[in-house]
Amino acid sequence: MGTAGFAYSERRELSDAARDTYLAFAIELAMGAGKAILPYFRPDALEVENKGSAAYDPVTQADRLAEQVMREMIGEHFPAHGVLGEEFDHTPGDGLTWVLDPIDGTRAFVMGLLHWGTLVALFDGQRPIIGVLHQPFTQETFAGDGTRAFRRQGMHEQILRTRSCDAVGKALGASTAPDMFVTDLERDGFGTIRGLVRDMRYGTDCYAYAMLAHGHIDLVLEAGLKPYDVQALIPIVEGAGGVLTDWRGENAAMGGAVLACGDPELHELVLQELQS
Amino acid sequence: MGTAGFAYSERRELSDAARDTYLAFAIELAMGAGKAILPYFRPDALEVENKGSAAYDPVTQADRLAEQVMREMIGEHFPAHGVLGEEFDHTPGDGLTWVLDPIDGTRAFVMGLLHWGTLVALFDGQRPIIGVLHQPFTQETFAGDGTRAFRRQGMHEQILRTRSCDAVGKALGASTAPDMFVTDLERDGFGTIRGLVRDMRYGTDCYAYAMLAHGHIDLVLEAGLKPYDVQALIPIVEGAGGVLTDWRGENAAMGGAVLACGDPELHELVLQELQS
Repeated sequence: MGTAGFAYSERRELSDAARDTYLAFAIELAMGAGKAILPYFRPDALEVENKGSAAYDPVTQADRLAEQVMREMIGEHFPAHGVLGEEFDHTPGDGLTWVLDPIDGTRAFVMGLLHWGTLVALFDGQRPIIGVLHQPFTQETFAGDGTRAFRRQGMHEQILRTRSCDAVGKALGASTAPDMFVTDLERDGFGTIRGLVRDMRYGTDCYAYAMLAHGHIDLVLEAGLKPYDVQALIPIVEGAGGVLTDWRGENAAMGGAVLACGDPELHELVLQELQS
Repeated sequence: MGTAGFAYSERRELSDAARDTYLAFAIELAMGAGKAILPYFRPDALEVENKGSAAYDPVTQADRLAEQVMREMIGEHFPAHGVLGEEFDHTPGDGLTWVLDPIDGTRAFVMGLLHWGTLVALFDGQRPIIGVLHQPFTQETFAGDGTRAFRRQGMHEQILRTRSCDAVGKALGASTAPDMFVTDLERDGFGTIRGLVRDMRYGTDCYAYAMLAHGHIDLVLEAGLKPYDVQALIPIVEGAGGVLTDWRGENAAMGGAVLACGDPELHELVLQELQS
C-alpha cells in the first residue's frame, strides 16, 4: 500500500551532524516500533480464538500500530519530512522521506520464527542514506549510513564488516523463498545462481542482509521487493563494505529484483552470470 | 556418524520420579552444550582467516566440543547409559540411551542465522521419553516428556500447547528445504502437501517443531532425518498435544521421512494425502 507518488527527486545534501542525528533518531523509531510489535508476537492461541480468528489478525494489528507509533514520532520531531510506509498512504514531504516497514518478514512473524525485523530508512530523493534493522525479540539492532555499519545488542556494540569471497562457487547465499521469482527472467537468474553457489538458504527476509553485513553470508538474491523492503538494508550493507543493487547493477532504492554481495568482486561476478 | 549398532530394544520402564530427574538433567546437558557452542557462533572473519580457513571450521569444532561436554556429564552422572551422538561413535548402554545433536541446523549456524539448536533426547529402547531443544543465542529452552511440554527463557516459563487446525488448506507448514526430499515418493508427497497448505516456510530445522508445539505452526514435513535429528522433538511435540510420526504414521524414532502436526485430526488428513 501507499507507494503511489513516491519517486526519485532532487537529492537533499546533508551535513555529517545531520546524518548522525537522523541515524540516532532512526534507531529510536525502530525500537519504538519494536516495543509496539512485541506483545503481538507469539500470541496465545486461546486469546486469538476468543477474539474471533477472522476479525483478530495479530500481525496486521502489530504492523499498523507500529507504523502509527513511528509516524507520530516523525510528526513530532521532523514534521516537514515525508513518510512512506507499508500500512498507510504515502505522505509527501520536503525532500527527505522516512521509509518504514514495521514488520519485514510477516510470514516468519506469524509462525513465531525469528527472521523478521522492523526496517527504517531515510531517503534523500536519490538514495537511502540511513538504514536500521531492529529485531525486538533478540534485542538486536543493525544500523548503517553507507560509510559505516554496526550491530548493537544491549550494552554490546560491534562494527559490521562483510567478508571477502572471490568466486560464486564459494559463496553461501540466501533468499527468502524460491517462489518469490515470478518472471521468466527472475526464475532463470535465480536458477543459474542457485546452481553455482556452495549453499542457498531460504526463509531469511531482512535478516539475511544483516548477516551479510556481519560477514557470515556472501550473497542475497531476491525479487519483487518494495522500496520499504530494501531501503533500510542498503546503508547497512554498503556501510559494512558490501554492495546492494538491482540485477542490472543499478540503484535498488525502488525495490524490484535485488542482489547484495559482501564482496564487491563477487557482486561483479554474479551480475555477469545474471546477464549472460 | 555413529548410528551403527543403534536399534530398537526391550523397553525400559521408568518411574515418574526418574523421568523428572532425567528431564532436569537433559536440560542441564543442553545448556552445557550451548555454553560450549556460543563462542563459535558468528566468529570474527579475520579470526577465521588467521587460523587458516581450511583447517579452522568453527561449526565442526563447536559440534565436537559440545558433544564432548555432554558425554562427560553423562559419564559422570549416569555411566551405565548409552550415548548416540552426531559426532562420535555410538556407545551402547544398559537400555537407556542419550541421543544428542549438538547443533541441529548447522547450515543456519554457519550463516549466523537463528533457527538452530542443541537437541537432547532420552531413548528407552522403543521411544524417546524426554526431549529438549535449547537455543543458546536466544536463551530459549523447549522441553517435554510426551505428557507435558514447556518453554523457558530466563525466569519466564510457559506451558506449550499446540493449536487446532482441522483442514490441510488452513495449515501453516514448515520444512527445512525443498531439496531434502530426494526419492520420488518423498518429492511427490512433499509436492502434494505444499500444493494444499496455506503457506510453507523453509529454513527452519528443529525450530519449526518448537513453534508447532508452541501453537504457531500447524505441520512440519521433512525427510532424510537421522535419529538424533528428530528424537528430542517427539516428546516436546507430543507433550504439547501434537503428533510426530513417519509418513506411514509409525514411530519416527529412527528418523527418515517425518510428519509433525499440532492437531491429531490434521495429522490423519495429511497422512491420507501422503498415502493417496
